[in-house]
Amino acid sequence: MAYELYYWTGIQGRGEYVRLALEAAGAPYRDVAREEGDQAIMKVTGQAPTPSFAPPFLKDGDVVVGQVAAILLYLGDKLDLAPKEAALRLWTHQIQLTIADLVLEGHDVHHPIGAGEYYEDQKPESLRRAREFREQRVPKFLDWFEGILTRNPEGPVHLVGSRLSYADLSLFQVMDGLSYAFPMLMGELAPRYPQVAALCSTVAGHPKISAYLASERRLPSNESDLFRHYSELDGKP
Amino acid sequence: MAYELYYWTGIQGRGEYVRLALEAAGAPYRDVAREEGDQAIMKVTGQAPTPSFAPPFLKDGDVVVGQVAAILLYLGDKLDLAPKEAALRLWTHQIQLTIADLVLEGHDVHHPIGAGEYYEDQKPESLRRAREFREQRVPKFLDWFEGILTRNPEGPVHLVGSRLSYADLSLFQVMDGLSYAFPMLMGELAPRYPQVAALCSTVAGHPKISAYLASERRLPSNESDLFRHYSELDGKP
Repeated sequence: MAYELYYWTGIQGRGEYVRLALEAAGAPYRDVAREEGDQAIMKVTGQAPTPSFAPPFLKDGDVVVGQVAAILLYLGDKLDLAPKEAALRLWTHQIQLTIADLVLEGHDVHHPIGAGEYYEDQKPESLRRAREFREQRVPKFLDWFEGILTRNPEGPVHLVGSRLSYADLSLFQVMDGLSYAFPMLMGELAPRYPQVAALCSTVAGHPKISAYLASERRLPSNESDLFRHYSELDGKP
Repeated sequence: MAYELYYWTGIQGRGEYVRLALEAAGAPYRDVAREEGDQAIMKVTGQAPTPSFAPPFLKDGDVVVGQVAAILLYLGDKLDLAPKEAALRLWTHQIQLTIADLVLEGHDVHHPIGAGEYYEDQKPESLRRAREFREQRVPKFLDWFEGILTRNPEGPVHLVGSRLSYADLSLFQVMDGLSYAFPMLMGELAPRYPQVAALCSTVAGHPKISAYLASERRLPSNESDLFRHYSELDGKP
């Protein structure tokens, strides 16, 4: 039976981290809200014994699981996108949770006062927050990703072990978002992180991911998404 | 061998979610930085093959795991603080991740512009963010917690199944933080969430937790912690 992904239409958003895992594995899935509209999300949330606080969530038969990291923990086993060995499986999850932190910080750059107000109504605050994000937070995260790639005992091709994991896919996705939102920043920073860049190329060149990225299922980045390009927020690190 | 918890001294912080699990289970552990100073944290981070992006992290022999939710996923199995059945184990984790989101939002109320600047330098922004937090975010989270307690097929005493889990302990902790930081808000809201309140009493009355809360190991809340009492940020919902 096909997996059912529930997530808002019109953006990549947090749903994309789940989509990339499903696509990389060639798993059959339905992107339900894209077929039936956003109201399909609330219908399932209202009925599930394990309702998600917010989309995305995944339905796999009787299992309904929300929170991107928990969904990927589940799919990692099912789709063979995580090591089987317990300690490495946990490490993969720890990396995913750290990526999730970066994703949220990337969003909060343009919404420091809260998601309930428009960007235009929190622009001076966004400008302030963007500076710390560019100068301190992004380099700190990238240092960490580069460091763990470099220290991977199986070599720097993948974040964990010597095979593709959902953490690799997620690092590709967050780097893609950062590059879209902050081209000037990332243009400066990227050369300092060769292992991260190589990993992103590896993921983008994965046959199934490459086909997905070229498909209509991959929506373009836009200014309703988590990572938004507002040129006034971009700049040198 | 005793578990080793690494977390900043002087606050409950995110380390407390791990401490509560260790304390509830009566597990032997060392709170390393409290014994050796904060520099002990960096020493281990620099050496571990799985370095944590930030504290807290837990050392258990050869395993070093960071990110609160990942630590609790690990300890939940070890300390019997999570269901053994896979779907419920995942649900417990999903709840924990949602609690982690609330913890971060609670912190960002007083640091909307970034953790790198003092609260005093982002006070007008904090006042704006606090309003959305009080009026929309806290009620939304509490609605969800009350809802999943009410819908627990095993009854509303625990979040998952009929036994204490790390998610129960974490919900107690975040409610404790909210009540400290926003006494006026929580005074208004608490009566609307009887199942959440009952769960907090259950956790506080757990013999080992009750002994811990009365011990010197439980640090008082303070204005260096995640949840801070700044009366100007408090108010009716």
